[in-house]
Amino acid sequence: MEKRDVAVLGVGMTKFGYHPDKSLAELFAEAFFEAFEESNIELKDIEALYFGNFVGEMTDGSANLGGFVADEIGLKGIPARRYEAACASSSVAFREAYYAVATGLYDCVVVGGSERLYNAGTAIGTRALATAVDGVYEITAGLTFPGVFALAARFYSKKYEIPLDELREKMAMVSIKNHKYGAVNPKSQFYNKFGDLKVEDVLNSKMICSPLTLFDCCPMTDGASAVILTTADKAEDLIDTPVYVLGTGQASAGALFRQKEDMIRAIPRKISSEMAYKEAGLTPKDIDFVEIHDCFTIAEIIASEAMGFFEYGKGADAVAEGVTSIDGDLPINPDGGLIGKGHPVGATGTAQIYTVAKILRNEYKYNPVKAEVGMTDTLGGDFGTLVNIILGIHRRGK
Amino acid sequence: MEKRDVAVLGVGMTKFGYHPDKSLAELFAEAFFEAFEESNIELKDIEALYFGNFVGEMTDGSANLGGFVADEIGLKGIPARRYEAACASSSVAFREAYYAVATGLYDCVVVGGSERLYNAGTAIGTRALATAVDGVYEITAGLTFPGVFALAARFYSKKYEIPLDELREKMAMVSIKNHKYGAVNPKSQFYNKFGDLKVEDVLNSKMICSPLTLFDCCPMTDGASAVILTTADKAEDLIDTPVYVLGTGQASAGALFRQKEDMIRAIPRKISSEMAYKEAGLTPKDIDFVEIHDCFTIAEIIASEAMGFFEYGKGADAVAEGVTSIDGDLPINPDGGLIGKGHPVGATGTAQIYTVAKILRNEYKYNPVKAEVGMTDTLGGDFGTLVNIILGIHRRGK
Repeated sequence: MEKRDVAVLGVGMTKFGYHPDKSLAELFAEAFFEAFEESNIELKDIEALYFGNFVGEMTDGSANLGGFVADEIGLKGIPARRYEAACASSSVAFREAYYAVATGLYDCVVVGGSERLYNAGTAIGTRALATAVDGVYEITAGLTFPGVFALAARFYSKKYEIPLDELREKMAMVSIKNHKYGAVNPKSQFYNKFGDLKVEDVLNSKMICSPLTLFDCCPMTDGASAVILTTADKAEDLIDTPVYVLGTGQASAGALFRQKEDMIRAIPRKISSEMAYKEAGLTPKDIDFVEIHDCFTIAEIIASEAMGFFEYGKGADAVAEGVTSIDGDLPINPDGGLIGKGHPVGATGTAQIYTVAKILRNEYKYNPVKAEVGMTDTLGGDFGTLVNIILGIHRRGK
Repeated sequence: MEKRDVAVLGVGMTKFGYHPDKSLAELFAEAFFEAFEESNIELKDIEALYFGNFVGEMTDGSANLGGFVADEIGLKGIPARRYEAACASSSVAFREAYYAVATGLYDCVVVGGSERLYNAGTAIGTRALATAVDGVYEITAGLTFPGVFALAARFYSKKYEIPLDELREKMAMVSIKNHKYGAVNPKSQFYNKFGDLKVEDVLNSKMICSPLTLFDCCPMTDGASAVILTTADKAEDLIDTPVYVLGTGQASAGALFRQKEDMIRAIPRKISSEMAYKEAGLTPKDIDFVEIHDCFTIAEIIASEAMGFFEYGKGADAVAEGVTSIDGDLPINPDGGLIGKGHPVGATGTAQIYTVAKILRNEYKYNPVKAEVGMTDTLGGDFGTLVNIILGIHRRGK
């Protein structure tokens, strides 16, 4: 069936960091009203809520959040869906919201997410995060996420014959870059912090799970983000700078022992990004910058390869050579990414959309990137859920 | 936009009860393959998974289940969404799956859910269930679900001026009816049990939260259910007895203190069921039988009113007069409902669809109901999420 063009009307996000005094619904409301204010619509124009949250039941005793969140933002009674796909929760929600508008189910919807992992504390937070790995074989074997990506780093080193010490230095460059960008972004958890890390700082920081040190890891974060979507036609009537959804993709994988050698090739990400390129009618060369799911330094490297930007085994070199810096050929995570900006899990996907929309609208002053097409990449769990979204300043095919 | 007619191709469900030796994904697989076997398709025909689960992270250490479940049933890599809306999780998933096929996003999808609350034990189960109430004001006040519906029963008694003792006897009739039907359903948790309860048995069973006794409450259950959906055109080519999706509705509400007097009028259910009637082009009079969310006896009564079958305050009388028995004008829960059959939360919505499809196809031998149109009603939380679905043996408008 013919699909309608869809555009981003407004975006909002809270400051990422520590929010002990706001509930998940209240945090979301803050992000929502920022998006609402720039959308030039009335509340009653919003027909449905698509809400991403990972572990509200464990951190806040709160599940079934759809209705509570809708009510909190003044949208009493509307259909409200909660999506859970670990770190990709609000990206899955975004893709569904996009399809709902594209297919004519609704004309205007709000999508976003919120999460409070910092406030939950390290013990509950770590336990909650670990539920994103396979619950039968992996979590029972003690696998938590630093473990997953430490495995990935070691596997990467071995498969592509890059000595681990050399790889660690290249991974450190991801941390340095993303912290540098995050430190100038006022919404970052690490605003004004860690902006001039050196390789030695990363290598010598606390060992979390060898070879990953503290600075190889993103932090635990509280925060929320929201995006209002409508048809391209309506958006052009309502605002000056619509950002269009050009393509989306989603794929999945089973437990790590079933992925085997596919793990560092991130096959579901390859499938998902190719789905997005195909829908957008674009190739990796057409993408001007990317928000990539850098939950760990090695994760950004692996992702940049599976999305088709670099050959397998060459992503680490690309970082070291500055290709992924904001003045390089393919800026990655100009807002600081998960490592520099923070990672409120269920809010991360639509926070990536926030940054991409701001940059494409030329409203992002901290690390400006001149761009017409931007892309997001969100990973849920240990490659269990992958979502990619391509946005641009022109309609598809224009 | 024009929507395509959608039909149920196959349905499956596990026995409800205690499943200590199967994971959430394995339980779902059992239900899925039952649905798959009657669908006359190949695995590769299924393009996406819509999966409902409420609290896998708390009961099984398992979130991010979409990919793991897809992989378990041999659908490696397909887009897989997990929906959480408390008891309405798989009903929300069903509605999304329906729209995906209706709008042409996919031609064939599987939707369902699984849950293990019995296996989790009463302490974890009660705590997990309580996350479906508001996490800020309600759960912290000690409100769990027997409390919510005990409040509802007392409010109902007061508002409609039915003495509590009289109301308790009428509520007991719901329990007697649903246990009677559940006891002859081999897939029920209470198969061959409690089939001939008397009013005194219900009134004198253990007090859970006054005025609700043990037999006023549904049990904690493990189980799974699955439904395969495709276009009506394809279904007519593939199977002899397609069951068509005629209408769906969904609405939401905020915390109880915001619903106030709306609580026992279940306003979101009124909105949701009217949405379903409108889409189906039908009225309550056209519905031949209903699967209603009887998490507690009073819940079935309240629901039957908000859906338009009885006037507000008259639902309790209808039960007492036998109107809702299988030989009455409007059979409710001929499979035993949640009280008689069991309530594996995330699996309950598509288990209702299972029964409705079986009855409409004339394949349900335990409590046969002659019917052309059936309806489901699923409640998530304390009225936070409501979903209604209407199915029939003829296409919409035919």
